[in-house]
Amino acid sequence: MEFSSKLLEKAVGEVSQLPGIGKRTALRLVLHLLRQPKEQTQGLTTALSAMRNDLKFCKSCHNLSDVDICEICSSVLRDKEIICVVEDIRDVMAIENTASHKGIYHVLGGKISPIDGVGPHDLNIVTLVEKVKAGHVKELIFALSSTMEGDTTNFYIFKQIQGLEVKTSTIARGISVGDELEYADEITLGRSILNRIPFEASLKQ
Amino acid sequence: MEFSSKLLEKAVGEVSQLPGIGKRTALRLVLHLLRQPKEQTQGLTTALSAMRNDLKFCKSCHNLSDVDICEICSSVLRDKEIICVVEDIRDVMAIENTASHKGIYHVLGGKISPIDGVGPHDLNIVTLVEKVKAGHVKELIFALSSTMEGDTTNFYIFKQIQGLEVKTSTIARGISVGDELEYADEITLGRSILNRIPFEASLKQ
Repeated sequence: MEFSSKLLEKAVGEVSQLPGIGKRTALRLVLHLLRQPKEQTQGLTTALSAMRNDLKFCKSCHNLSDVDICEICSSVLRDKEIICVVEDIRDVMAIENTASHKGIYHVLGGKISPIDGVGPHDLNIVTLVEKVKAGHVKELIFALSSTMEGDTTNFYIFKQIQGLEVKTSTIARGISVGDELEYADEITLGRSILNRIPFEASLKQ
Repeated sequence: MEFSSKLLEKAVGEVSQLPGIGKRTALRLVLHLLRQPKEQTQGLTTALSAMRNDLKFCKSCHNLSDVDICEICSSVLRDKEIICVVEDIRDVMAIENTASHKGIYHVLGGKISPIDGVGPHDLNIVTLVEKVKAGHVKELIFALSSTMEGDTTNFYIFKQIQGLEVKTSTIARGISVGDELEYADEITLGRSILNRIPFEASLKQ
C-alpha cells in the first residue's frame, strides 16, 4: 500500500497490529477518525492509555478491577463461600449477565494446555488452593469450557483439593435452550439424558 | 455488558464507536492490548494522536500529506498537465498501486449526492475548475465510481469546464480481468463491446 503521508502510514501500521484487523480495515478506521472531531481521537487515546496504565487485577480473584479488591469480592451481598472458577474475565462478565451466581469468582487466567506451553504454574491455581485450605470455601463451581484443556484443568484442581472439606460441582452440559434435538452432537445429547432433572424443578427455572 | 472496571468500560466504549466494531469486538481488542507490553498501547495512542493532530491536506490536490504540498504534486517526475479526478484518498492509493498514472491527482472529497445532502459546494470542485481555467491542464481523467452519483459529479465538472481548452476522459468500464463473461452484468458487458480496443493494442498491455 502506498501512503502519501508517514503519519497516516504509522497510524495504520499500529492499528493493523490489533488481532483480526488488516491494513485495509485499519485504513478505514483511521480515515473515519480523521473525519470526526479531534475530541473523538483524543477520547479514544486517553481511554486506552488510562486503561493500560492504571487497570489492576483484583488481589483476591484476579478479575480486572480499578481497585485492589474488585467490586464483586468486596460486595456484602455476595456469598464468599461459593467460588465460581473461570478461565477468563470475559467468562465473569458472561455469568454476571445471567445474574444466576450469587457467590464470588476466581479467574485462572487460562487453562492447562501443554500444546500452548501453559502449565498449572502459569495459572492462578495456587491462590485458589490456598483459599480452600484456609477453610472458608463451601463450594467450588467449575465453569471452564467443555474441552480437553478445560477438563484437564478441572481435574488438576480437583486433585489439589482432594481430602479438603469442600463441595465441587461443574456447570451442566446439555442441549442449548431453543436448539433442536436432531442437530445436537451425541455427547451433549447423551449427557443431557444422564443428567436429567425432575420436571417439576425445571418448571421453576 | 457488566464491567468490573470503569477504566475497561470506558476503553471498550471508545473503541466500539469505530465503524463496524461492536462491544464484543472492542472488548477483545482491549483485552489483547492488556496482554501485550505497555509499549504497544503507547505506540498506538501516540500514532493516532500525531496522525489526527498533525496530518494536513495538500493545498494543491487535497490529498492527505505531512507537508503543505504532497509528494505527488511536488515530484518532478509527475506530469502536472494530466490530472486524475478521484473521490477519496483511498482511490489515490489504489491507482498509485497500479503505477499506471504518471500525472497528478485532484481529490474531490466525495461525490454529489443530494440524498446524503452533499452538493457541489461541499466538494473540492472550485479549486479544480480554477486549475483548468489557469490553462496549465491538458487532460482531466475522471476516475469516479460508476454510480449515479459518480456520473452526476463527472457531468457537473464537465459542464463547469465546457468551452475551456482541456481534454476530458473517463476510465474504461468493462469486464474485470479474470472474470467469466456469463456472470458480467449486461450494462458492463454492453459497454465493453462498444468500447472495444484493437487486439494489437491489448497485447502490449
